[in-house]
Amino acid sequence: MKVAKFGGSSVASAEQIKKVAAIVSEDSERKIVVVSAPGKRDSSDTKVTDLLIHLGETYLSNGEVELALQAVVERYASIAEGLGLGGSIIATIEADLRERLTFDRNRSGSFMDLIKASGEDNNAKLIASYLQSVGLPAKYVNPKDAGLLVSDEPGNAQVLPEAYDHLKELRNTDEIIVFPGFFGYSKEGTLVTFPRGGSDITGSILAAGVEADLYENFTDVDSVFAANPNVVSEPVKIKKMTYREMRELSYAGFSVFHDEALIPAFRKGIPVCVKNTNNPSSSGTMIIAEREYFLNPVIGIAADEGFSTIYVRKYLMNREVGFGRRLLQIIEDEGLSYEHIPSGIDDTSVILRQCQLTPEIEERIVERIRMELGADDVYIEKDFAMIMIVGEGMHNTVGVSARMTAALARANVNIEMINQGSSEVSLVIGIHEKDTDRAVRELYAEFFGAAVEVVQ
Amino acid sequence: MKVAKFGGSSVASAEQIKKVAAIVSEDSERKIVVVSAPGKRDSSDTKVTDLLIHLGETYLSNGEVELALQAVVERYASIAEGLGLGGSIIATIEADLRERLTFDRNRSGSFMDLIKASGEDNNAKLIASYLQSVGLPAKYVNPKDAGLLVSDEPGNAQVLPEAYDHLKELRNTDEIIVFPGFFGYSKEGTLVTFPRGGSDITGSILAAGVEADLYENFTDVDSVFAANPNVVSEPVKIKKMTYREMRELSYAGFSVFHDEALIPAFRKGIPVCVKNTNNPSSSGTMIIAEREYFLNPVIGIAADEGFSTIYVRKYLMNREVGFGRRLLQIIEDEGLSYEHIPSGIDDTSVILRQCQLTPEIEERIVERIRMELGADDVYIEKDFAMIMIVGEGMHNTVGVSARMTAALARANVNIEMINQGSSEVSLVIGIHEKDTDRAVRELYAEFFGAAVEVVQ
Repeated sequence: MKVAKFGGSSVASAEQIKKVAAIVSEDSERKIVVVSAPGKRDSSDTKVTDLLIHLGETYLSNGEVELALQAVVERYASIAEGLGLGGSIIATIEADLRERLTFDRNRSGSFMDLIKASGEDNNAKLIASYLQSVGLPAKYVNPKDAGLLVSDEPGNAQVLPEAYDHLKELRNTDEIIVFPGFFGYSKEGTLVTFPRGGSDITGSILAAGVEADLYENFTDVDSVFAANPNVVSEPVKIKKMTYREMRELSYAGFSVFHDEALIPAFRKGIPVCVKNTNNPSSSGTMIIAEREYFLNPVIGIAADEGFSTIYVRKYLMNREVGFGRRLLQIIEDEGLSYEHIPSGIDDTSVILRQCQLTPEIEERIVERIRMELGADDVYIEKDFAMIMIVGEGMHNTVGVSARMTAALARANVNIEMINQGSSEVSLVIGIHEKDTDRAVRELYAEFFGAAVEVVQ
Repeated sequence: MKVAKFGGSSVASAEQIKKVAAIVSEDSERKIVVVSAPGKRDSSDTKVTDLLIHLGETYLSNGEVELALQAVVERYASIAEGLGLGGSIIATIEADLRERLTFDRNRSGSFMDLIKASGEDNNAKLIASYLQSVGLPAKYVNPKDAGLLVSDEPGNAQVLPEAYDHLKELRNTDEIIVFPGFFGYSKEGTLVTFPRGGSDITGSILAAGVEADLYENFTDVDSVFAANPNVVSEPVKIKKMTYREMRELSYAGFSVFHDEALIPAFRKGIPVCVKNTNNPSSSGTMIIAEREYFLNPVIGIAADEGFSTIYVRKYLMNREVGFGRRLLQIIEDEGLSYEHIPSGIDDTSVILRQCQLTPEIEERIVERIRMELGADDVYIEKDFAMIMIVGEGMHNTVGVSARMTAALARANVNIEMINQGSSEVSLVIGIHEKDTDRAVRELYAEFFGAAVEVVQ
């Protein structure tokens, strides 16, 4: 049994949904189909999710919702028309949306979850309807009926352990199940959405629940690339990679998966395949527990921007037991999470995502570190990028950091930070944001310059 | 006015003390002479300090002290004889020691400080006596009389701020002051010794107190070398370096200074010169606040062994605000201090000095991290070395880490950790202890292979 998830661009139009139907009908093992909301048809288009956010916000501010509602309904109507479906599915969708627009305005977090999730939910109904219309034995299944139980944190649902027992029942289906991505239900019956990458998470949870042989993740690229194609021209395709490699790469800015989406599948040891809806015959990228062959110690290069560093200097800091712990306590008191803590003898830095900081928070932190820790010097620097080199072959390969640092020197990029030593599969370098693209290109040339098109 | 400190080998014998007298008489600015206890005359010799420790331990265990006492007295007697001094100075020293051996055995920490410090104290009396005998206007000054006040922590004295006001009075001397290194007195009048590097600390405090123009530190080498001469054959001499460079190098195993000894002089901006008692015409190494000329970005390479790493892995660690702080709290609860905390996404390591760990502490830490933090994996690895590359020119010099990592790759040394990013003047690499010497030699070849004999 396979779970196939189709992303926003794969279900953005009638034409795309026809491709989905062809893919599903081609392999009888594809029994569970997870769908996103309709994405952009071209770069100037608006995603249904964004139309829904506008609709929801209009409702919450007591505005006139009719126009915003029609924009959503028309989008589905144009898809249904292209698929030759009758008007009843659109009537169903419109009624569903109107029902949602009666929700208690005082529970705004849960209401926004409810409205946003309609994008996936109604698209699943529409696609099930289309699959039936072309003679496939398909049915829409609602996450509540399937028992996809999650924690009650609007926008940040975590799957509950008992959900897997319920979802296991889906194994017994004779029909093709069309399942909306992005959300589940709390024990109290409230709809709650997953964090970023929500439909991927749903697919991953379902694959784990039914103990699928394969979790196929259909998107609009032939495979995962070794570097960002917007930065490096025609980067090589990755044929096989491990979960750990994928997790580290996606954490540092690879956009194929959000870094937590794979964990449910990973924990059950289910292989994941990234494939292209527009070119399904391409073999895609397999993500597996282990790979054995390390011709190239590095499998990918990722970059992420928007980091700040809090620099703290104090004489004899290293003699003061508890200094680091008290510094992290101040960071924690502000609710901030940090990424790295490089340290010298008399100084240490805390590197964190800049988006967490405001001028008020910065002022409070600097003041507290100065007063409570008696620091001689405290300041915050901004606009750093973190570049991550990832590969299972890196650990115990002599010379990877030498090649990396040499490449950056060639590109005249100053290294502000190196963090190597805990993860066995990655190495992080901090640089100035202005140097990011130049650094990624030179690192790519170093590690993939002579590579054949397909990596491992 | 100059403060000149002479280390153990510079005052180990009559022959050496004659060199000290020649050096002092040669420059009328040398008004304050700080002396150590007599050190080893050759590699098979025993230092007076070690004879005193034996004497003190015999006394504390109620043993027969006479033999141990005579060993100390005979050592001074042989020096006095070589210097042509009469018997009265030896009678003074013997009486002093017998007086110390009446101290309360229940205050063993303070007693050991009292006995150990007699090595410097009596040597100062002897050397003052000799300088007078050759016609120099010298006098012995006791730290209590000079007001060198310190905190009352046996073996770990910290100078008190008011001490500097008292010591300033020494500026007004017409005579040459001979001052014993290694100890001061608490406000209650108890003798307390400084931590490791004690006589250097005394010299540094006196130089700060009298606001000397120069603090000369006489030892048995012509200068500070760019690497350990026991590992690298004939390393280049460092002509000028900054306090920060010296502090980082001595922290990581450079033995010329203990890393805190320079701080009092540093805070007053007093230049320090390391010179050779056996070759005083050599210009030595100047340690100053700033240097301008950075032909070579690296000034020295140090290595230190005996590090352990506590590895901790937990899924979604990076989403858990407070994880790092709670980990450091566990380390702190055991009274341990750590050196570095490299981190990945789901894992982090704490690197600390191995000598702090016992099997019981290790077991408790691993158990607490596993239970209280819910870690998926925790283990301790041992026998790592930290190599430190130091130089004011490193920051903003592109390519230093590239050259470093390339050298290690050439030497086939696997890099276990890199910590760069907080200190502007150093970069730390963790490797296995077995690779230490090979790594230092190859790094030396990389950064100093083409160097002329004298650096900067």
